[in-house]
Amino acid sequence: MRNLLVLSLALNLSLITRVFFDGEKHGLFFSVENQKQRGPSFAADKEAHATQKTLQSLSSSSQEGTEKVINLDHGDPTMYEKYWMMMGERTTVVIPGWYSMSYFSDIKNLCWFLEPEFAKQVIRLHKAVGNAVTEGRHIVVGTGSSQLILAALFALSPKDGSEPMSVVSTAPFYSSYPVMSNYLKSGLYNWAGDARSFNKEGPYIEFVTSPNNPDGFVRHSMVNRTGGILVHDLAYYWPQYTPIPSPADHDLSLFTVSKATGHAGTRIGWALVKDAEVAKKMIKFIELNTIGVSRDSQLRAAKILEVLTNTTEKHGSSDSGESFFEKSYHLMAERWRLLRAAVNNGRMFSLPDFAPGFCHFLQQETQPQPAFAWLKCEDDAVEDCESFLRGHKILTRGGRHFGVSPKYVRISMLDRDINFILFLKRLSKIQS
Amino acid sequence: MRNLLVLSLALNLSLITRVFFDGEKHGLFFSVENQKQRGPSFAADKEAHATQKTLQSLSSSSQEGTEKVINLDHGDPTMYEKYWMMMGERTTVVIPGWYSMSYFSDIKNLCWFLEPEFAKQVIRLHKAVGNAVTEGRHIVVGTGSSQLILAALFALSPKDGSEPMSVVSTAPFYSSYPVMSNYLKSGLYNWAGDARSFNKEGPYIEFVTSPNNPDGFVRHSMVNRTGGILVHDLAYYWPQYTPIPSPADHDLSLFTVSKATGHAGTRIGWALVKDAEVAKKMIKFIELNTIGVSRDSQLRAAKILEVLTNTTEKHGSSDSGESFFEKSYHLMAERWRLLRAAVNNGRMFSLPDFAPGFCHFLQQETQPQPAFAWLKCEDDAVEDCESFLRGHKILTRGGRHFGVSPKYVRISMLDRDINFILFLKRLSKIQS
Repeated sequence: MRNLLVLSLALNLSLITRVFFDGEKHGLFFSVENQKQRGPSFAADKEAHATQKTLQSLSSSSQEGTEKVINLDHGDPTMYEKYWMMMGERTTVVIPGWYSMSYFSDIKNLCWFLEPEFAKQVIRLHKAVGNAVTEGRHIVVGTGSSQLILAALFALSPKDGSEPMSVVSTAPFYSSYPVMSNYLKSGLYNWAGDARSFNKEGPYIEFVTSPNNPDGFVRHSMVNRTGGILVHDLAYYWPQYTPIPSPADHDLSLFTVSKATGHAGTRIGWALVKDAEVAKKMIKFIELNTIGVSRDSQLRAAKILEVLTNTTEKHGSSDSGESFFEKSYHLMAERWRLLRAAVNNGRMFSLPDFAPGFCHFLQQETQPQPAFAWLKCEDDAVEDCESFLRGHKILTRGGRHFGVSPKYVRISMLDRDINFILFLKRLSKIQS
Repeated sequence: MRNLLVLSLALNLSLITRVFFDGEKHGLFFSVENQKQRGPSFAADKEAHATQKTLQSLSSSSQEGTEKVINLDHGDPTMYEKYWMMMGERTTVVIPGWYSMSYFSDIKNLCWFLEPEFAKQVIRLHKAVGNAVTEGRHIVVGTGSSQLILAALFALSPKDGSEPMSVVSTAPFYSSYPVMSNYLKSGLYNWAGDARSFNKEGPYIEFVTSPNNPDGFVRHSMVNRTGGILVHDLAYYWPQYTPIPSPADHDLSLFTVSKATGHAGTRIGWALVKDAEVAKKMIKFIELNTIGVSRDSQLRAAKILEVLTNTTEKHGSSDSGESFFEKSYHLMAERWRLLRAAVNNGRMFSLPDFAPGFCHFLQQETQPQPAFAWLKCEDDAVEDCESFLRGHKILTRGGRHFGVSPKYVRISMLDRDINFILFLKRLSKIQS
């Protein structure tokens, strides 16, 4: 591991140097110092000035990187690496070879593979952020929230139904819902399409993704009739992406560290489940699927959530410059400001408009600034926006995957600075 | 994590003290010193003498622990903790907070979520042990071999078949195969029972588990006709459990760290796959199931396999006292000797008899000494051996789960010393 680290540190050194150099050049990146001066009340005219300067610098800069393919198809949250680098050793985990070897984390818990420390930090985090009620809930840990989506489908479908349970979500919906519902041709459940047009009698499962992937809007159930079971996918219900008006209080909510902290490679998600019977069936699914969830990953996730919550509790104090959510909020705000400025420089593209809301966590009115940009090609000559952008070496995910027109694409806003800047450059160049 | 470690170390101290004390008392445990003297050629009369002494000490010892339920239902490999404790910090992993955050481990690899270091150590290990051909194979990493079993079912079933593909294995078969094949009521595959009596026309998937779980015998395909696709589950094909005559050379073989090194909580397995198209489909399954495999766990597993292989390469040298496989082989040999002595003390139980074989790794003839004891209740009055032993506070898994008579039970041989000794005491007491 030490060798690996030395190698990795060497490899990363060049990247870090480049990222920071690039960052200074464009004035795009937060640092502890800058952030303290800025704060949530950063004046609008200063912002406009900075945006203008950055855009000028983008269009006047050299042709550097024009050959590079920018992959913004996946929501790979590498943007957050820099924050955790700045936090130094505080989130470093040390796991001895003889540690956590057993399958079992906590045999007294319904969820026997849940690390008690991870559960503790999940509860602490939700309490600090105020984005979910954890009282009266069973925590079920999963190998990412993907596994929990499948566990929920298994748990909520009757085992002896005469036909598969319908699974719906409002378009544009997360592109994985249809394929996850159908790839095993399960007799328990199958994909029934857009919740708006769903009119079949009988029970169904509705995924309510809020804020929504891909378009970022706040969502509520669309079918909303008897016999429906709701699964709230709250992967993006965090202050950097959307105002937090109140704690979510649903029967079954899903979260994931990938989008909360950026640790996608750790593959850890969690469900808050009201009904013990549903929780038991989800646990059974995970037993049969992977015999529990990596304990190492849970320990690492616990450490990261612990440090994150520590910085969050300092929120508003003199140490607030370290707050993960404040810093990430400002970074997302700056990215969205730059993206909107680039898009508004021409007429080829458009972005959704969001209504601001009061965020009880940040104690101010904030704008939604989603993890994905839901871009529309407004040009009549462009039928397929994904193909069009691919021609400019920008990989995105087209509207058809989300059940809507190919005029739309979903673009990750969470990539490393260097790719985000290249993306803005290309967008500016396309419109110039 | 440091707090966690301090807490854990404190908690474990009492356990370690107890285990080592208990160990010295019964002369059951290896230490680097003892092992060097013993070696594979330990004289048979010395063994018999030691066994006799231990059994005497068991039956004459106090009633300590008679109330404790011993859970030997699962194959939880906690026996190996002590070896990794002895290895000290060599297998400690240190993972900084900013490390391996991306979903992607290696975008150039077919298996984009496979850590290159893990792949490297898998190849090195198989080469050192000589238990599998890795040349011309794609390595697919999974969240334990359970996920790879499901991935193989998905990959090997036609997507447009008129009916589900039959899945078979020879009884007694791994108890999870039927339920894993059926729990999602998949239209792609379903369980078709004992391979011996399978006579349906058309294609099928046969799981060949060798050495077999639960009974420990070496296995070959039983159906063996055209249209069959074999999946070799080689979780136990390691020198501590069975002689290694030659490297396995199959189309699709599965391995797991749980049984190789004892790190069950890490949830890492791997498949060696000949056909790139099959590998691609398995990778697709894991994408849809969990979007890859925890990178933290792969890094930890890589470190453990690296150290393990280092000790293995020293095999035969003056440092061979550290060899994981040698030490584990001797520990299993001692446990099996004690178990057979306890069983042979009466007429209530019997165990399978195995033919010895030449182990090319240990360079000597060795006995199979499986990870599970496949115990039969020979007493006519006992119809259900699982219930009978439960009455004596020993939890096991009954034959019905494995497709055979309830006169049989599967008993884990991999628990901590303290539980294994208690189990022997109870068995002796039942027969006395």
